[in-house]
Amino acid sequence: MPHKDFKSALTVNPGIDQPPSISSDSAKKFKAKKKRLLSVDEYCEGIFSQNITFLSQAITLVESSLPEHHILGQQVIERCLPYSGKSVRIGITGVPGVGKSSFIEELGNEITQAGRKLAVLAIDPSSERSKGSILGDKTRMETLSSNKNAFIRPSPSAGSLGGVARKTRETIILCEAAGFDTIFIETVGVGQSETAVHSMVDFFLLLMLAGAGDELQGIKRGIMEMADLIAITKADGDNLRKAQVAKVEYESALHLFPPTESGWIPKVTVCSSRQKTGIIELWSEIMEYVKFTTDNGYFTNRRRYQAKYWMYETINDTLKSSFYNSKDIQEIITLVENKVLDDKLSSFTAANELLDRYFKREKK
Amino acid sequence: MPHKDFKSALTVNPGIDQPPSISSDSAKKFKAKKKRLLSVDEYCEGIFSQNITFLSQAITLVESSLPEHHILGQQVIERCLPYSGKSVRIGITGVPGVGKSSFIEELGNEITQAGRKLAVLAIDPSSERSKGSILGDKTRMETLSSNKNAFIRPSPSAGSLGGVARKTRETIILCEAAGFDTIFIETVGVGQSETAVHSMVDFFLLLMLAGAGDELQGIKRGIMEMADLIAITKADGDNLRKAQVAKVEYESALHLFPPTESGWIPKVTVCSSRQKTGIIELWSEIMEYVKFTTDNGYFTNRRRYQAKYWMYETINDTLKSSFYNSKDIQEIITLVENKVLDDKLSSFTAANELLDRYFKREKK
Repeated sequence: MPHKDFKSALTVNPGIDQPPSISSDSAKKFKAKKKRLLSVDEYCEGIFSQNITFLSQAITLVESSLPEHHILGQQVIERCLPYSGKSVRIGITGVPGVGKSSFIEELGNEITQAGRKLAVLAIDPSSERSKGSILGDKTRMETLSSNKNAFIRPSPSAGSLGGVARKTRETIILCEAAGFDTIFIETVGVGQSETAVHSMVDFFLLLMLAGAGDELQGIKRGIMEMADLIAITKADGDNLRKAQVAKVEYESALHLFPPTESGWIPKVTVCSSRQKTGIIELWSEIMEYVKFTTDNGYFTNRRRYQAKYWMYETINDTLKSSFYNSKDIQEIITLVENKVLDDKLSSFTAANELLDRYFKREKK
Repeated sequence: MPHKDFKSALTVNPGIDQPPSISSDSAKKFKAKKKRLLSVDEYCEGIFSQNITFLSQAITLVESSLPEHHILGQQVIERCLPYSGKSVRIGITGVPGVGKSSFIEELGNEITQAGRKLAVLAIDPSSERSKGSILGDKTRMETLSSNKNAFIRPSPSAGSLGGVARKTRETIILCEAAGFDTIFIETVGVGQSETAVHSMVDFFLLLMLAGAGDELQGIKRGIMEMADLIAITKADGDNLRKAQVAKVEYESALHLFPPTESGWIPKVTVCSSRQKTGIIELWSEIMEYVKFTTDNGYFTNRRRYQAKYWMYETINDTLKSSFYNSKDIQEIITLVENKVLDDKLSSFTAANELLDRYFKREKK
């Protein structure tokens, strides 16, 4: 039944509230984890009542590669959609060592004290180690992880950037439906994931270290261009003066960039997580940005263009899952790939053999 | 007939030598161009007899977005495949102003005089202007373009990077079948296309200008890491000393990079297209690399992994074409996209409506 492969790749069927029956095989896998699948209603009620345990379980479904979980996860998302969108989504990036965790912890504690509810998610497509992310060691955010108004979720385990990004975007929806009004998306490492993060946030914050004249190194121009605010971290003690010099340098560098689409003029600030300086000021800038872009209509427009982008991403992702998860392809793809590696088949012929098999099956 | 959409997206049918019949509509379009479609046999005979006119026409087919041309182009490629692969494929990149054209002209004239047959292709995904590429103005390579052992082909006109890259890879096959033993793939501009080029060449050459201390700016670390050789251009006159200083700087920078997979230690050289110095030496380095990697098996291995990569690229590309070119989708996609932009439909629901329509159609 060809349609099933598609459905298992991505299905949203709002009419059906019961979880699909689970095949004995995956039931075993699932049992091994000693968890029970709930119904869409149960998950959603839990999320709407802001229960973190239910939220976490629903995110696990969304991240799962088991088709049964995935279907259920998509049904939960579809039900959460009308209750999503009402948060400020902030992307936070910077090279390793810039102090992202301490910064997020300080800022997070500040804003939750001021009454906000914060979810911290991470994108780390390269993370194979320990099947989690750097954020996985929550110890680095000790006070924030025990803060009842904060929810820290490690990056989904390794996968393609596209897949990880889509899961993160879906997780945003669940968090918003669970009442979180502030979402931080942290990128772990620098380079690939910023564009993906940029496509799902309202505000993009770049953390930088004051270095020795090599400020621009290691950070691609493209990433600086995305930034709505650059914050020089660790601006304390002996480092304060250096940070202030760097601030001036970045300010002149930013002048050389083309004007932003939003009309917002990117700022540069300095801050210290250790001395807790510059943190509240930075948050005020973000709020200022939200006001500015809400007033000029950019905030809503950007969300809509992001939605369009995600429509296409979802389609492209699903087309691939449907292909690579189909039984007919899974049966032979390793064989075919090996023939290509052994130079017994050209890449084009191999691709066509597989495509023929897939589409012919769809035709029957 | 669902299968047809797939077939028009990418078809290789080695059993059929006759060109498919042409619909009156595309016949008209084609007539407007005042060219006649030949048969697969005719194109291939022309290519095998090293006739440049036939080669050019076959490349045009490969680049065409008309399904009829595309099918025919794929058939020609399939027939050329057994005669391909016997060249050295060299990627050449560098910022605008580095002197790529003059360099290619000098090097090209040197090696064709030494008996090689050279095809120069370009990847320029961003080029919308004049539907051609910068290389399109062949005047910049005057002597090379009138050299009978050289074939210069402008970049295919605008399209997605993936699409352009695939067409370039297919063009390599046609050129090799036409007897070209040396292929240059020039990237126009710096940034996106280097990875695509790297995935189709044996050797990656990065041209750099000696600047004023800012050597590393504008070139991503990732691109430097790909380079098998860095050549400092315009090393003549007053610039010679600066170039030699830059050479030493790059050499130390390269030391900091992780060892290459090939075991080859990337070199830095200086050269001048104007004074024709350092060009032959650079070519000797490339030949040295080919010998080194052939001996240690890396050359063949890399080609095989590239073939695997292209198998997946071809599949993913075809899945998308099949979807977006299908009538059912084309009829409504703009409508659905607009609903998303107007916030009347969520990206997930929109994606699902389209996917449902596509896969249901496939099922009938």
